Amino acid sequence: MAGDASTVAEALNRRFLQGHPRAAARQLEELEPESAAALLNRMPSVQLTPVVEQLSPSLAASILPHLDDERVKEVVTATDPKAMVAILHQMDAKQAEDYLNLVSPTVKKELTALMQYPEDTGGNLMDPRVEPYAGTLTVEQTLKRLRQPGYRVKPVLFVQNEARRLTGRVSLQTLVAARPEQLLDDIKGPVSVFVEPLAPQEEIVALFDKHRFQSIPVVGLQGELLGVIWQDTLVRAVEEDATADMQAMVGASRDERALSKALFAVRKRQPWLQINLVTAFLAAAVVGLFEDMIARFTALAVLLPVVAGQSGNTGAQALAVTMRGLAIREITTRHWPRVVWKECRAGFMNGIGVCATTCLGVFLWSRSLGLTGVIGISMILSMVIAGVAGALVPIVLVRVGQDPATASSIILTTVTDVMGFFSFLGTATLLSGFL
Amino acid sequence: MAGDASTVAEALNRRFLQGHPRAAARQLEELEPESAAALLNRMPSVQLTPVVEQLSPSLAASILPHLDDERVKEVVTATDPKAMVAILHQMDAKQAEDYLNLVSPTVKKELTALMQYPEDTGGNLMDPRVEPYAGTLTVEQTLKRLRQPGYRVKPVLFVQNEARRLTGRVSLQTLVAARPEQLLDDIKGPVSVFVEPLAPQEEIVALFDKHRFQSIPVVGLQGELLGVIWQDTLVRAVEEDATADMQAMVGASRDERALSKALFAVRKRQPWLQINLVTAFLAAAVVGLFEDMIARFTALAVLLPVVAGQSGNTGAQALAVTMRGLAIREITTRHWPRVVWKECRAGFMNGIGVCATTCLGVFLWSRSLGLTGVIGISMILSMVIAGVAGALVPIVLVRVGQDPATASSIILTTVTDVMGFFSFLGTATLLSGFL
Repeated sequence: MAGDASTVAEALNRRFLQGHPRAAARQLEELEPESAAALLNRMPSVQLTPVVEQLSPSLAASILPHLDDERVKEVVTATDPKAMVAILHQMDAKQAEDYLNLVSPTVKKELTALMQYPEDTGGNLMDPRVEPYAGTLTVEQTLKRLRQPGYRVKPVLFVQNEARRLTGRVSLQTLVAARPEQLLDDIKGPVSVFVEPLAPQEEIVALFDKHRFQSIPVVGLQGELLGVIWQDTLVRAVEEDATADMQAMVGASRDERALSKALFAVRKRQPWLQINLVTAFLAAAVVGLFEDMIARFTALAVLLPVVAGQSGNTGAQALAVTMRGLAIREITTRHWPRVVWKECRAGFMNGIGVCATTCLGVFLWSRSLGLTGVIGISMILSMVIAGVAGALVPIVLVRVGQDPATASSIILTTVTDVMGFFSFLGTATLLSGFL
Repeated sequence: MAGDASTVAEALNRRFLQGHPRAAARQLEELEPESAAALLNRMPSVQLTPVVEQLSPSLAASILPHLDDERVKEVVTATDPKAMVAILHQMDAKQAEDYLNLVSPTVKKELTALMQYPEDTGGNLMDPRVEPYAGTLTVEQTLKRLRQPGYRVKPVLFVQNEARRLTGRVSLQTLVAARPEQLLDDIKGPVSVFVEPLAPQEEIVALFDKHRFQSIPVVGLQGELLGVIWQDTLVRAVEEDATADMQAMVGASRDERALSKALFAVRKRQPWLQINLVTAFLAAAVVGLFEDMIARFTALAVLLPVVAGQSGNTGAQALAVTMRGLAIREITTRHWPRVVWKECRAGFMNGIGVCATTCLGVFLWSRSLGLTGVIGISMILSMVIAGVAGALVPIVLVRVGQDPATASSIILTTVTDVMGFFSFLGTATLLSGFL
């Protein structure tokens, strides 16, 4: 019975792995590398490689050392070379070399060539196993070739001339709609978008974003096809790029990864921290202007973090929503009056709500009507300013030709701190008779 | 001569618009709606619709009223219905109704049906113009049908049985590789991933993220095919979802758009602002503990924003990098020791750099070695804590089953403020003899 159950479990497993390699990869990633390797060791190799291709490269690299040598050889040989190179890039040179020595010289040569391209460049992201077609082939001849057993059909065919120069593209959709006697040259579309092997990922994402082609060919100096970046890679690149905004906002570099070296992080973040420091001194200078007031009423110092916290958060909300609107092209900078007006009203209404709670809290704590009034007024004021500033910062950055994300959070915090402290300590000074 | 030049310009334009509808749409979005409409009015309608489909819906809706009636009719009829519905959703009900009355009853009915589905649901995102194929068709018969002039070939065919129930999918890649006499039923793959028309965009993105199928069918209660969500829509949804993290982090809802109503923004943001307020009071309470110290040395109050600003920014950098690592699956929560150790070291090294500048600034301002020492020590301390906290917050959120983005920035700010003030005012108290 136990045998039966485990057979069923195994069959289910196999079915799951076959139909859902990506979902299976996600589950394997939850396990310790040793346990994941134990499962992969028992899997037939046809099922193994699709799963490995879907593992995150850093995780695949940590699982590989625990696989049997025979399995490793299969994996390195049969895995999509682009995915394999990403895994090898996660290892130190010595370890990668050891794995490459396990496989045939042909595969080793192919992988070594790909590894020459820096990470996140066209050459590194492309699928090199793409065969260009002569434009003089007829549709019928082409379909026949695609029908050869074991042939890996791709969603787009690339057409070259006799000089092996890339001259066009034919999607399968066009191919099946064409008449059998037509030539590829007759039905091909132009290749107006392509990249060179050293093009950085950012540039590739920008191209994809601009044209949304399903694939981007990588082309050599002679105009020859070196490989193709397929849509799944492009989707991943888009996702990486979209999430990089979060990092740019706070002055961490777009290239930094969670597992980057600490020194890399320091080198990239330090300049922005230094700039942030200057702006923090600016906020401190505002507080310094009111040092006498604070010496008389230390309660003001106690409440400074409340004002800074609320206007900071209000501004950050407006910033996030506006930046995203620009990123997904819901708005352009031309929409600024509408967006600013919305954030102004949202800041005011949110300010009233927050003001109510703050006044209650401050009155219970201080029993001072004067202090309560001061923080109430300044809360509404500073939250309106914060909302408007949050909407304006990314729009202004775009207008002056900058990436709207770049250090936007640092710039915004300066504004919200300075204006928050000014409104709070300024109101307190004006109304000091009531304190 | 002038005529010549404008002919050339027009030809160039036409070529550009034909080959690059998306790039053309981006350029139109930079213009005032009136000018964009003037350009579109002069364009032949075959070129018009691909461009309109690529415009952002809110911008298309603002351009439409400036088009000639005849053009509008063409646009509403010929534009991809999914894209058209997104545009109509941007208008008020009356205006949308007016446009729908311009077109034939069939098109009106189709669009009206689609408009019933709420925005950002399966039914709203799908392409309804998809024809399912009988599984008893041979490959040859199918290819013949695709070759009919004017037929819009899609990258995947969906197969149904006699009861009109969806039973499988056949990609063009599989189709062209199959033998002509094979039946679609013989070569179809299973449809293991599908959604119902009311499935929210978030669920659809999660499915796409899990399986990376090129398209997701939308299926009715009887298992019949209602439409298909194609990859370009999925890519856009992924992008929208990835950038929504920014909003969730600061307590703005994932659904909010830059052009949402102010009241919507208030309703969604207010609860988090109230929570932020409570945590700000917590930070204030820490400052309150040291009120006597501040009364004696008001310089401490002046420097509070510097400490809070630096540890806040350091924490935000660690948070952004870690959250992105989790989002793009570079890391899982199992990597926490490595990530935390990296941020700990980065915080320490960045702390030393920032400490140097701060000490210089504070000494020049205060001429007090004691105060300089206090802020120097607390700067390094609080930046190490901030780095570690920034890495831990999203990891802990995932471990307790939450979205790592949810309010992570609000939680983090609380930690960095409280710990920053503690380390600064605590150090000052310990070393008060030197102040």
